[in-house]
Amino acid sequence: MSDNGRIRVFATGGTFDKEYNALTGQLFFQHTHLADMLRLGRCHLDLVVESLMMVDSLEMSDRDRELIAERCQVATENRIVITHGTDTMEQTAAVLGARLTSKTIVLTGAMVPYTFGSSDGLFNLGTALAFAQTLQAGVYVAMNGRCFHWDEVRKNRELGIFESLRKS
Amino acid sequence: MSDNGRIRVFATGGTFDKEYNALTGQLFFQHTHLADMLRLGRCHLDLVVESLMMVDSLEMSDRDRELIAERCQVATENRIVITHGTDTMEQTAAVLGARLTSKTIVLTGAMVPYTFGSSDGLFNLGTALAFAQTLQAGVYVAMNGRCFHWDEVRKNRELGIFESLRKS
Amino acid sequence: MSDNGRIRVFATGGTFDKEYNALTGQLFFQHTHLADMLRLGRCHLDLVVESLMMVDSLEMSDRDRELIAERCQVATENRIVITHGTDTMEQTAAVLGARLTSKTIVLTGAMVPYTFGSSDGLFNLGTALAFAQTLQAGVYVAMNGRCFHWDEVRKNRELGIFESLRKS
Amino acid sequence: MSDNGRIRVFATGGTFDKEYNALTGQLFFQHTHLADMLRLGRCHLDLVVESLMMVDSLEMSDRDRELIAERCQVATENRIVITHGTDTMEQTAAVLGARLTSKTIVLTGAMVPYTFGSSDGLFNLGTALAFAQTLQAGVYVAMNGRCFHWDEVRKNRELGIFESLRKS
Repeated sequence: MSDNGRIRVFATGGTFDKEYNALTGQLFFQHTHLADMLRLGRCHLDLVVESLMMVDSLEMSDRDRELIAERCQVATENRIVITHGTDTMEQTAAVLGARLTSKTIVLTGAMVPYTFGSSDGLFNLGTALAFAQTLQAGVYVAMNGRCFHWDEVRKNRELGIFESLRKS
Repeated sequence: MSDNGRIRVFATGGTFDKEYNALTGQLFFQHTHLADMLRLGRCHLDLVVESLMMVDSLEMSDRDRELIAERCQVATENRIVITHGTDTMEQTAAVLGARLTSKTIVLTGAMVPYTFGSSDGLFNLGTALAFAQTLQAGVYVAMNGRCFHWDEVRKNRELGIFESLRKS
Repeated sequence: MSDNGRIRVFATGGTFDKEYNALTGQLFFQHTHLADMLRLGRCHLDLVVESLMMVDSLEMSDRDRELIAERCQVATENRIVITHGTDTMEQTAAVLGARLTSKTIVLTGAMVPYTFGSSDGLFNLGTALAFAQTLQAGVYVAMNGRCFHWDEVRKNRELGIFESLRKS
Repeated sequence: MSDNGRIRVFATGGTFDKEYNALTGQLFFQHTHLADMLRLGRCHLDLVVESLMMVDSLEMSDRDRELIAERCQVATENRIVITHGTDTMEQTAAVLGARLTSKTIVLTGAMVPYTFGSSDGLFNLGTALAFAQTLQAGVYVAMNGRCFHWDEVRKNRELGIFESLRKS
């Protein structure tokens, strides 16, 4: 099921990693919580976690997406998970999908910050790591327990869920 | 990646679903927390959850395992996730593995009860649902982010992790 | 120590009761969490909880403060706790302090929303209910484990703590 | 209201400080969580925390109670909070009450371990610290938002609440 090869996890920010600033009442980024989450999940995969940026995906630039694509290309791992804001996850997936065809890349994120206790982040991270181990090369979005190919997914902003563009 | 078919989730108890009784100071079972966990994970898979029993897996009988196997066989779904205590997960997996060859069945559990806040359960459930969607027919154990075939896994009780019996 | 009389708890909003909107990524008010918090605290005081408004205290108007003062005056209880945003807690305390001299009124709040898991709200609510039972008539602010008379307190916005204006 | 003097907090164990051992599935003591709880409560009282023992109060010996009494007597602080298991809190309170008459001593505890997320501990700690600041010399039990004099309290084991022995 798994090739037991190492998985690289890139953190880019998004709701996943937002925190509450008690002094200002604003949400902000400090650092990724991926290490805490992997510890909580008692994950024993061979992983390397790397934080590329900590941005709200609405503020992610073309240059940021370029950087993510480059880092996926030069990574020695064939299996990659990317944590990402949900608002533009499909755009980044499309940039990667058009360019990277020989690696299994799974983007995931959260609708509620991990630090808020009631987050979907830990569940999503679990699905993303499992999909990354089992799916063939391609770029995917893992949200809501499901996995979508990059060219068939959109975020339904009214419902806050990801759905397939394909006729079902 | 997924056949978009319905997944059946059987709850059998285990640490996963244990709760703290504030009056007695003991751990006990009330009912499964799977519905709460799926809501927290914002899961939108086509699932049906069914509680078969609520037992500590150290107290699971041959008859209990027989029941689980029967229910897997008669289920109309080809993809099944079973939540189970970790102490005898490999035994139940072996019973199922010897008998069910045409369905994808993934057992998972937790080392810390879901209700205790610091549980690996949500992460494990995410991995199990993803593995159930993507793996070919067979019986598997999903723990620690990894997925093991039923005939190659054991729980390392000193470390509290699942490991492969295969030479690596 | 207590007259065992009923305590009235007025909710007015503030960080205490803010929630995270997963669709918009914004904080908002839905309803007070006081009932949940009192259940969690296993509180068995004779209490009546009433929600007067759900506002950020930076947006609390003179008219809102007037309403709070009136409701304190007409309440049949002599001991009152008010949950309030921290940013203008001292202003509301001053309005009440200048007018209500025969009741024990304790304002409290939180620096982190209760629903975020890592909130000081439950601790503060505990202190406020205890101070309300034991202090003589007067208007007080209970934050950071301490209790301040209304005319000697200010919020230190840099540190996010309440401190006494009195020379120590 | 407060003499602003330093409060000494003695930890003795109890449900308050129990943790879950993921390897054995048993509850156990590691160290007190008081520092974490005071940080979460953003407490800025002048406190000194000292762990005297980490025991289930059902296993607290006469010698343990003797030690607690001695440490209360020799403490330079006049205001003391003791975290304690709920099962024999009233016995320890009686030992202290018969001997210490010039200090304000408040015992508190929890029905659910702090580390389990759904604990009453933080609320109780808040009430205990507030009662310790405001009550006159005496030995008290602070539970369920209420404060009881040591010679009038009992734990109702069926309901899991503390109640007064006095006719109401």
